[in-house]
Amino acid sequence: MTTWPRFNMASGPVDVTAETLRAMQRPVLYHYDPAFIEIFSRTTSLLKRVFRTEYDVVVMQAEAILGLEAVVASLVAPGDKVLNLVSGVFGKGMEDFIRTYGGDPVELSVPYNAAVDPADVRRVLQSIPGIRYLTVVHSETPSGTVNPVREICRIAREFDVISIVDTVSGLGSELLSPEDWAIDVAVAGPQKCLGGTPGLSLISVSPAAWAAMEARPVPLRGSFLSLLDWKSTWIDNGRFPYTPSVTEIYALESVLEQALREGMEAFVGRHQASAKAARAAVKALGLELWAESESIATACCTAVRVPDSLDAKEIIDTLRARYGVMIAGGYGELAGKLFRLGHMGQAAHPTLVVAQVGMLERTLLDLGMSFGPGTGVGATLESFAGWNDEAAAYPV
Amino acid sequence: MTTWPRFNMASGPVDVTAETLRAMQRPVLYHYDPAFIEIFSRTTSLLKRVFRTEYDVVVMQAEAILGLEAVVASLVAPGDKVLNLVSGVFGKGMEDFIRTYGGDPVELSVPYNAAVDPADVRRVLQSIPGIRYLTVVHSETPSGTVNPVREICRIAREFDVISIVDTVSGLGSELLSPEDWAIDVAVAGPQKCLGGTPGLSLISVSPAAWAAMEARPVPLRGSFLSLLDWKSTWIDNGRFPYTPSVTEIYALESVLEQALREGMEAFVGRHQASAKAARAAVKALGLELWAESESIATACCTAVRVPDSLDAKEIIDTLRARYGVMIAGGYGELAGKLFRLGHMGQAAHPTLVVAQVGMLERTLLDLGMSFGPGTGVGATLESFAGWNDEAAAYPV
Amino acid sequence: MTTWPRFNMASGPVDVTAETLRAMQRPVLYHYDPAFIEIFSRTTSLLKRVFRTEYDVVVMQAEAILGLEAVVASLVAPGDKVLNLVSGVFGKGMEDFIRTYGGDPVELSVPYNAAVDPADVRRVLQSIPGIRYLTVVHSETPSGTVNPVREICRIAREFDVISIVDTVSGLGSELLSPEDWAIDVAVAGPQKCLGGTPGLSLISVSPAAWAAMEARPVPLRGSFLSLLDWKSTWIDNGRFPYTPSVTEIYALESVLEQALREGMEAFVGRHQASAKAARAAVKALGLELWAESESIATACCTAVRVPDSLDAKEIIDTLRARYGVMIAGGYGELAGKLFRLGHMGQAAHPTLVVAQVGMLERTLLDLGMSFGPGTGVGATLESFAGWNDEAAAYPV
Amino acid sequence: MTTWPRFNMASGPVDVTAETLRAMQRPVLYHYDPAFIEIFSRTTSLLKRVFRTEYDVVVMQAEAILGLEAVVASLVAPGDKVLNLVSGVFGKGMEDFIRTYGGDPVELSVPYNAAVDPADVRRVLQSIPGIRYLTVVHSETPSGTVNPVREICRIAREFDVISIVDTVSGLGSELLSPEDWAIDVAVAGPQKCLGGTPGLSLISVSPAAWAAMEARPVPLRGSFLSLLDWKSTWIDNGRFPYTPSVTEIYALESVLEQALREGMEAFVGRHQASAKAARAAVKALGLELWAESESIATACCTAVRVPDSLDAKEIIDTLRARYGVMIAGGYGELAGKLFRLGHMGQAAHPTLVVAQVGMLERTLLDLGMSFGPGTGVGATLESFAGWNDEAAAYPV
Repeated sequence: MTTWPRFNMASGPVDVTAETLRAMQRPVLYHYDPAFIEIFSRTTSLLKRVFRTEYDVVVMQAEAILGLEAVVASLVAPGDKVLNLVSGVFGKGMEDFIRTYGGDPVELSVPYNAAVDPADVRRVLQSIPGIRYLTVVHSETPSGTVNPVREICRIAREFDVISIVDTVSGLGSELLSPEDWAIDVAVAGPQKCLGGTPGLSLISVSPAAWAAMEARPVPLRGSFLSLLDWKSTWIDNGRFPYTPSVTEIYALESVLEQALREGMEAFVGRHQASAKAARAAVKALGLELWAESESIATACCTAVRVPDSLDAKEIIDTLRARYGVMIAGGYGELAGKLFRLGHMGQAAHPTLVVAQVGMLERTLLDLGMSFGPGTGVGATLESFAGWNDEAAAYPV
Repeated sequence: MTTWPRFNMASGPVDVTAETLRAMQRPVLYHYDPAFIEIFSRTTSLLKRVFRTEYDVVVMQAEAILGLEAVVASLVAPGDKVLNLVSGVFGKGMEDFIRTYGGDPVELSVPYNAAVDPADVRRVLQSIPGIRYLTVVHSETPSGTVNPVREICRIAREFDVISIVDTVSGLGSELLSPEDWAIDVAVAGPQKCLGGTPGLSLISVSPAAWAAMEARPVPLRGSFLSLLDWKSTWIDNGRFPYTPSVTEIYALESVLEQALREGMEAFVGRHQASAKAARAAVKALGLELWAESESIATACCTAVRVPDSLDAKEIIDTLRARYGVMIAGGYGELAGKLFRLGHMGQAAHPTLVVAQVGMLERTLLDLGMSFGPGTGVGATLESFAGWNDEAAAYPV
Repeated sequence: MTTWPRFNMASGPVDVTAETLRAMQRPVLYHYDPAFIEIFSRTTSLLKRVFRTEYDVVVMQAEAILGLEAVVASLVAPGDKVLNLVSGVFGKGMEDFIRTYGGDPVELSVPYNAAVDPADVRRVLQSIPGIRYLTVVHSETPSGTVNPVREICRIAREFDVISIVDTVSGLGSELLSPEDWAIDVAVAGPQKCLGGTPGLSLISVSPAAWAAMEARPVPLRGSFLSLLDWKSTWIDNGRFPYTPSVTEIYALESVLEQALREGMEAFVGRHQASAKAARAAVKALGLELWAESESIATACCTAVRVPDSLDAKEIIDTLRARYGVMIAGGYGELAGKLFRLGHMGQAAHPTLVVAQVGMLERTLLDLGMSFGPGTGVGATLESFAGWNDEAAAYPV
Repeated sequence: MTTWPRFNMASGPVDVTAETLRAMQRPVLYHYDPAFIEIFSRTTSLLKRVFRTEYDVVVMQAEAILGLEAVVASLVAPGDKVLNLVSGVFGKGMEDFIRTYGGDPVELSVPYNAAVDPADVRRVLQSIPGIRYLTVVHSETPSGTVNPVREICRIAREFDVISIVDTVSGLGSELLSPEDWAIDVAVAGPQKCLGGTPGLSLISVSPAAWAAMEARPVPLRGSFLSLLDWKSTWIDNGRFPYTPSVTEIYALESVLEQALREGMEAFVGRHQASAKAARAAVKALGLELWAESESIATACCTAVRVPDSLDAKEIIDTLRARYGVMIAGGYGELAGKLFRLGHMGQAAHPTLVVAQVGMLERTLLDLGMSFGPGTGVGATLESFAGWNDEAAAYPV
């Protein structure tokens, strides 16, 4: 049997806390048991607080790719024009869903190490009439970059364009709020910053988005992909359109509780400080960030350009085989070009950032690079000056 | 907080074993960690053995309603004629999927306490030309009945009709085999007889079914609902089309191991003996089975007609509130007409059948029925004569 | 590997609840971690409430045999006269400890299916001068009997005799209180009615008992067996005399919480109703209780005389091998003479009493006895008339 | 509620692996259930392999202080002369037990940062006639030092002196063997290098030690402290003298399996390499080891002299409160003088040594020390050159 890594510091799914594992140990309830109805209901309430929203939220029963497809399937009718912002692999992937459901994609793209400029979004919306939806990835996990979603969505709203935001790894890495950020539909995942398990899609839906779904010539109903089904069954009537993933819900309830116990500001601050410390190490080691500027680096993981002298796979495999740390490499067309330090969930903490950076240093030395041992970790430690768990309130 | 039931003996999701809970406690791996690839691969191998098939199997990441929709979406092209056999709520529900994806449903229905007659299937296939698919529910959980799927699918094959079987609660309650039963696509769930968690769809696909998917004018690709995506990524290339539900896979691996350790014959025998004993109790208590004849009763749960003098909700609520046993009532148009004794997974055992029947007796006495206490349990005990765990090999 | 039983309904250790198992899953803390100090402190507070006492309590780190030995070692000085009441195996066993530590045992014994008469205790105390201690077993688990400890200890107190009570399986089966019952030292175990794990001794100590320990010519100190060490370290100074069994403490905290959530009256009532129902079954089946009268039967387990036609081992082995239920037989000189139905912890509930009685019926029928199937369970069900979990508040 | 630390890197009890926690989740068996007998038996076999011995082993049910007291109580008869080697707090503590049980202690002591010289042992044994037993602590956890037990015990054997070795934290930190090292009785604990839970004593007993126990004028029997009771019940007859701590045994079985899967050489090597790396960091940071020379430093933890400018409690509290890492301070008369980096069990790995050293650096900087950040970790990383998990085979 393949030996397991000691630490899963990939870019999702990631290690979960002991508390989350215990929550999943609760006996499996019948989904119509009153105790489960209570848990599900409470979980959606907690999710609203984590999303910092009063909008409706929907917890769909499969990972966020399902959620993203469901949103497109529920909103986009044949012929609808959709402005798709592309700054990475996931942004590009949205085009497939738009086409599958008959939409007419308009692409605004930037290189995969850059972020979309809100001014360009405004220009496109001004110049191309009839755009109904805008799709954008908040945190492009494969590239380790973020787009300025708040500015973008506020512009979209000026044009009465419904915004659809993939914030799968963004929730928890920035202090977002659908209302404040003018996000009509946000899709997040529990398996990224929240440190949960990867079987659910977490979706917030604005009244305008609900109205758009209902206003379609043929609203999508009677499908696993239908958000309206969730509205008419669970939200309006406390019934389920199908069987929820009971133990995934247990895990979600727990990670939401943990996040709220810490407080969303501290939670986000912990991720941002960890990312900053990871970037400090990267620079100190003479490596290059994949992101074209540090200001657009995401807080959930740090993408690092593979040095010319080395091979991405060799770095990742050595780190795992010799030191038990699993990190992720590039994905899709980024494969081989970068590797990613993960600092999501419980990994977003000085102990594990230091452990990871230390093992990376050790690995790079093993592979022939040269620098003073401790260089990267030293920069990390300096970056963490002022850290205080009592503020960050890491829950166990 | 609502008190939890002591025993979840509903008709799925049901209590899972301690062994399954422990399996889910394993640390959450990155889905491209070699240790997870190994587990996923091993799990699909185990699934083939539980399905008793050499066909490809696909494990989709959401409960079986998603799986059923995915099968229809992957196979049925606009205009395709589909013979939909209806003997209950789930059979009827297939019609929605067929219509959603542009199919042309032809319904052959029987009352919801009866089973479809294979001779009628033959007659329809003979009389209506151009039928490409046949959809049938093996074990209609809401009605507690089974259809003669083996006979039906063999007939379908004579007519070159691709058969799609909902065996969500059938897998484990009969000793099925896709090849022997001529089932082209079988969709099962881990949360029924296997006693697993409810976040996955287990699908076996015949070569003919794959061919049909690929032969569509526009094969379904690039969707969470696409079976072909699983074929071209996981089956052919060992990649995932999206992130699997890691802990659900852990649970599935475990329940498959447990079933195979027991042996599928013993496993099925245990469910059938439990169902027989439950039916003996029902009859001894002067209650009526919902199924029109015992020969079409499913082995996964026993649906009982609510006596005229009583109210279904009152029975179910009293059983849970006073005695801590959760069972399921009727569903959809069967609501209020029946209640269901559950004997899936670990509940398929004399101890828990006796506990359940005993608490049902106690409840019915509480609600004013009269019979000698022990009447139902006595019949159950007689029915279990010859039981031997050493044969049934219940694993813990 | 030997197959595990489905239900451990022995007379301790017994099955623990899912909640208890989860509590044990918490990460192992350093015993001087402030979080552990807090848990240990809270646990002793909870224990006082379960014991219904204001006396000091000591949690010793090994099962109650250690606790009983420690009490004797801490109190009894060479030459001290100890009245040892013997109504069973455990009562008799106390004599060894008394002798080991130099005490002079005076025995008052009755047959092992009877209880000590308080009047006899008074007579002995009146007739034999100089008795300093009295030792008595509250609930003689091997015989399934109880002694009238309240009456006995009140008499002891009249004579200024320090009473030492083995209530290992008594705590939770009667609504005791050291103050009200005049018990100077009570030793209980978590693995019986409380349904905990078997690695701790739970001891309440009256001021008079502390004084007696300190008044010894050479008080016992510097030993694992010293209760005074616990007083001077933990109780007086919040330090530990040695490392506590961290995960056992987690389990204890949890079972105490569960008991108090239910409420001690309901908790005890649940055990007594379960025992009464088990006895009803025994009588209905034509079997004989081991206890000479029902009034002295313990609430934690029901000892049943083995019918002449059968063999104890055969009954126990068949019940386990065929039906997965583990019960205990006789112990010491009672071996082969009786078997014991266990209804401690979560087994003290109609579901599991019925399951156990049903499987016993099935086993006795298998072994050739004859009676109408359901006879025993029927009596059990009648006995449970009026049961209501909402009152008994079973916690999960 | 007090926040828990993220990592328990104290000097025992320490964090346990996920695998160990899962092992403890198994249902609690009756101790005479055949499945438990099998587990207990298997566990003692595994223990022999971890001890690398063919001697009998005894697993006593309370932490090693009980085990040490039991050994003295079982061996030392009133008047027996015992050479007690003292190089630290625990060595000194043995004197109490020797006196409690009537022995006549002869002390050979060195400062608490030094090790006993075997030549001195020989000299004492030559000069003082009639010594029957020798007691020595292998790894003095509070001082972070080791004694040359192999040399000492071989000398003892020359003089027919029975050796009693406290190797509570030594087992796993050196590749010991009772036969090869001439250890008559070795007492180890599962909660140190093995990374288990702290409720058991692991004892190996040579034939000579058994003979000595039996040869006492009054052999110790009928006591929780009696090793002979274990011999005559468990070893000779497969019965238990009292109820074992079922879940502690589950944990022990698991940690023994994990150690043997890794292999004892790799296991010990991992601890030694971790200790060496920790010492390298201490030196690089300009701190002083407590041990007078590195050659007598234990592999289980690294004791560091508190710098004059700082306060031990402040270091420990800051490390825990700000960075979530719990380490231990000095104990007994060493309190305030030192702090200890823990690298036992899963903490004996580059990731966690680096995390711990990194957080120590951060803490010392916070408290006003000055050095280049990364200095300690850098030395650690250099020390770990050549590390390879594939050799060390860390099990999860």
